[in-house]
Amino acid sequence: MHIGFLGLGNMGGPMASNLVKAGHSLSVFDLSQPAVAELAKQGAQGFNSVADLVAAAPDVLISMLPAAAHVKGVYLGDEGLIAQLSKPTYLIDCSTIDPHSAREVAQAAQAAGHCMLDAPVSGGTAGAQAATLTFMVGGAAADVDKIRPILQAMGKNITHCGDNGNGQVAKVANNMLLGISMVGVAEAMALGVSLGMDAKVLAGIINTSSGRCWSSEINNPYPEVLENAPASRGYSGGFGSDLMLKDLGLATEAARLAKQPVMLGAAAQQLYQAFSLQGHGNLDFSAIIKLYLKE
Amino acid sequence: MHIGFLGLGNMGGPMASNLVKAGHSLSVFDLSQPAVAELAKQGAQGFNSVADLVAAAPDVLISMLPAAAHVKGVYLGDEGLIAQLSKPTYLIDCSTIDPHSAREVAQAAQAAGHCMLDAPVSGGTAGAQAATLTFMVGGAAADVDKIRPILQAMGKNITHCGDNGNGQVAKVANNMLLGISMVGVAEAMALGVSLGMDAKVLAGIINTSSGRCWSSEINNPYPEVLENAPASRGYSGGFGSDLMLKDLGLATEAARLAKQPVMLGAAAQQLYQAFSLQGHGNLDFSAIIKLYLKE
Amino acid sequence: MHIGFLGLGNMGGPMASNLVKAGHSLSVFDLSQPAVAELAKQGAQGFNSVADLVAAAPDVLISMLPAAAHVKGVYLGDEGLIAQLSKPTYLIDCSTIDPHSAREVAQAAQAAGHCMLDAPVSGGTAGAQAATLTFMVGGAAADVDKIRPILQAMGKNITHCGDNGNGQVAKVANNMLLGISMVGVAEAMALGVSLGMDAKVLAGIINTSSGRCWSSEINNPYPEVLENAPASRGYSGGFGSDLMLKDLGLATEAARLAKQPVMLGAAAQQLYQAFSLQGHGNLDFSAIIKLYLKE
Amino acid sequence: MHIGFLGLGNMGGPMASNLVKAGHSLSVFDLSQPAVAELAKQGAQGFNSVADLVAAAPDVLISMLPAAAHVKGVYLGDEGLIAQLSKPTYLIDCSTIDPHSAREVAQAAQAAGHCMLDAPVSGGTAGAQAATLTFMVGGAAADVDKIRPILQAMGKNITHCGDNGNGQVAKVANNMLLGISMVGVAEAMALGVSLGMDAKVLAGIINTSSGRCWSSEINNPYPEVLENAPASRGYSGGFGSDLMLKDLGLATEAARLAKQPVMLGAAAQQLYQAFSLQGHGNLDFSAIIKLYLKE
Repeated sequence: MHIGFLGLGNMGGPMASNLVKAGHSLSVFDLSQPAVAELAKQGAQGFNSVADLVAAAPDVLISMLPAAAHVKGVYLGDEGLIAQLSKPTYLIDCSTIDPHSAREVAQAAQAAGHCMLDAPVSGGTAGAQAATLTFMVGGAAADVDKIRPILQAMGKNITHCGDNGNGQVAKVANNMLLGISMVGVAEAMALGVSLGMDAKVLAGIINTSSGRCWSSEINNPYPEVLENAPASRGYSGGFGSDLMLKDLGLATEAARLAKQPVMLGAAAQQLYQAFSLQGHGNLDFSAIIKLYLKE
Repeated sequence: MHIGFLGLGNMGGPMASNLVKAGHSLSVFDLSQPAVAELAKQGAQGFNSVADLVAAAPDVLISMLPAAAHVKGVYLGDEGLIAQLSKPTYLIDCSTIDPHSAREVAQAAQAAGHCMLDAPVSGGTAGAQAATLTFMVGGAAADVDKIRPILQAMGKNITHCGDNGNGQVAKVANNMLLGISMVGVAEAMALGVSLGMDAKVLAGIINTSSGRCWSSEINNPYPEVLENAPASRGYSGGFGSDLMLKDLGLATEAARLAKQPVMLGAAAQQLYQAFSLQGHGNLDFSAIIKLYLKE
Repeated sequence: MHIGFLGLGNMGGPMASNLVKAGHSLSVFDLSQPAVAELAKQGAQGFNSVADLVAAAPDVLISMLPAAAHVKGVYLGDEGLIAQLSKPTYLIDCSTIDPHSAREVAQAAQAAGHCMLDAPVSGGTAGAQAATLTFMVGGAAADVDKIRPILQAMGKNITHCGDNGNGQVAKVANNMLLGISMVGVAEAMALGVSLGMDAKVLAGIINTSSGRCWSSEINNPYPEVLENAPASRGYSGGFGSDLMLKDLGLATEAARLAKQPVMLGAAAQQLYQAFSLQGHGNLDFSAIIKLYLKE
Repeated sequence: MHIGFLGLGNMGGPMASNLVKAGHSLSVFDLSQPAVAELAKQGAQGFNSVADLVAAAPDVLISMLPAAAHVKGVYLGDEGLIAQLSKPTYLIDCSTIDPHSAREVAQAAQAAGHCMLDAPVSGGTAGAQAATLTFMVGGAAADVDKIRPILQAMGKNITHCGDNGNGQVAKVANNMLLGISMVGVAEAMALGVSLGMDAKVLAGIINTSSGRCWSSEINNPYPEVLENAPASRGYSGGFGSDLMLKDLGLATEAARLAKQPVMLGAAAQQLYQAFSLQGHGNLDFSAIIKLYLKE
């Protein structure tokens, strides 16, 4: 199968790498020449522009881009790849963008005879490298089944979320809840310790009680509670606070368009915005606990 | 062992019952005569006042009362049981109250030669009846070991949380996080569905992703997602919204005294307060999702 | 002076009317034929499309449209009026839209040789009818001076706010503060009354103290405090809750793009969203106090 | 008239001073000997204890104490002044405390045959020195009339707020709104400037529009907007952030007891708590804008 891949950043790079390892014929493009060169070294064919890659007529085209503006720019318009592809193609956008944009692009793709799927991921750069990502996929069930083997070269869980855009909906809803939970764990841990409890004892109780959640069990924000969590290495690595801020922005904006209140989601967004203003946007998102601890 | 028990309400009643079943000699008091009569029928000895029960000189005295004011009223002062007990006694307060009051009472008890433990529970009325409660215990480790067999007649997990008051700290921190998580799940579910997702599919994705928590897995607030959850039976039964409101009030008040910010905790408290004002305080606390759904 | 006017709704209609009364030669268009007919009856010339109106080559063109999408749709693109106007024209957009869109349109207009100003208004339909609107104008000072006489036919205060887009910035910042203040007054009034105070006495004290603001003095949300306020006539008339919700959405979205936290602004937005979900979006925005009063 | 005065701090000191200047015979006590000595130098008679002062049998007794615990400690109990006063006395508590405590003390005073009024003040230390304070007085109208001349020696506006406790209710409701308004102005100013507006121009527009409030007009938090505001002298002087935090705590606690939601009031409290945690509690409360500005 001939696969095209657009966007070879922190996530896209290792994902493309895993496709090569799985034996696919891969055509790649990125604005960064070194990123293209790196994949070429691994066996992919590098291209100098989207147009050139499109002209090579891949059977499947995967994109992993920073934001909706990039996705729309690459897919839509007279010069966009939807218009330029010479044959019906499987299009898979793995970028995390708002559901409305995802549906707009999918509609344009389908109108032009292509199959389109939104397939945002979770699992971070570690998951991208280890091919253990979770894909949340929106689109027709038959299409999901067809491209499943390709996604399985990059990830472990391939979840069908419903029609086009629902992959993004699932991601946005889950990550909003994740952001709220993380702030909630930060507040509960900071409160308990300030009232006299040992942080590890408190974490242990929460993790066997009704307060338990991924953020308390796997990425506890209090320092030294979990040996391998970012909180025990100065909040380096992990999922950056500014990425959480971006996802919370997608969630509240989607909520606004859907006329849906999200009180705690909006509060969490503002707290991450304030945290970013203080210059901490590059720390793991569990570092939000710094807002609650005396320096 | 001769055990005294004060407070035979929805929680205290079945707890006392389990002590009788375990073979303890039990002396009980409650302002409600029928509650006392019910326990007497099961084999306990009923008393007409705290003073009478105290005069019977139990070895251990357990209390399960609605709020700090009741606890202080019963334990402290010249007429309080701390002053009236004729011999050193093991005092175990299972009420959920603020940590400061718990420490104040414990200090008075110890000054008078008694051993005191705060031991609030989680698990609800179902746990009280099934003797599967979790006890979060604050006090000296040696004392906890001594009364452990008694608590085991009423519960499954007996967790030592540290010094006096720390049982209350653990409860308050856990339940604040629980309230935040529940509102967060309600928002995420309502948002996802309003954006076009199926509720069960969304819950499935969240429960295998980083948004998962007790509230999404065990007590999902969206109707018909979990067959046996309160959300699938009109939010009856379960842990009442006004009880969650009380616990969030304890958390923010303890935070105020500790000079500790709890942004989402305070927001959750206000949302439950608004929900209660609308007349829904007696519904399970997962019913908070009603704030997010069109009627 | 020959003036074109696009958008004859609740605001645009009376504004256009006042221009006719002031003796201007007016060309008008709206999707609603009755709205065009009404202005024609008053002496304006009605057109069947934007293109026809543009072909009539007005010297000044004023637009009053619902949202940024409409403004961009009418002004931009090959078929947009910026491209179609045959001579340099003064363009004045009175719509309330986000500052980024306002700047994007202004840039396009200037690139094509037109003068463009953003001039959102405050004062509501009453101000539009009485020609007492406040105009917050963004653009070059010299341009503002030139079109001032035209705006003065529709309003009382013409405030220059700085460069293009700043009219929108001023409006968005002021209205976000207005929304916060209104919720704040609602909370303070409801709290005081629930604690035993007379509403009028409390309003009197606030209005002579440091809590005083436009919302407490001019549009007090508590019923029967101000005889002529919406609160004393079932919250009819005035500035609709859904319009406040729209403005709060513009504010938080502009804040997101500017990476600026707005905690209370976001909270106010969510409260108005929840209020709208309950079906109250058409009531005056002071009706938000209903969230705080027992029914 | 022989007046007793308890509490000679930053507020009580100058208030007592103004009573001496007005010709009253003043008996004073404070835990700080230098504070007593200072007033003695001005003509008051100093006492070494509350008991001694009470024994001197003043006709009127005024207290100005830090918190409810102090007020209850001084007034209530067998050793409290209510029990110790030998004749019916006018009792005026000018401390800012919660309404429930104010009513509890007033009830005890009246049961013992004294007249009691709660009379918290606004106006700060500057108002205390210049005798321009505002008194918000709760109690019987006839009593307010009788002590009005005494209060007029210390303040300009004497407002009767209704029955006992209502002075505190008025203060707490007004100051909660003040805290919300200040944060709102901080957010609106920071947002407008970050979007490209000049701070003074924006303040000018807000102050002639619907966003205007005491915080925008008199104590604008943006630096250099108002020459004489704390914001233009490094936020020194004025009303400290920790005092605003205390008042917001009184408001949310009173709201909790009244089962009244106060969403923005609680959010403002948490923001001031976070600000205090960062070490800024002694700055004027307008300094909260620091949470919104890049350092």
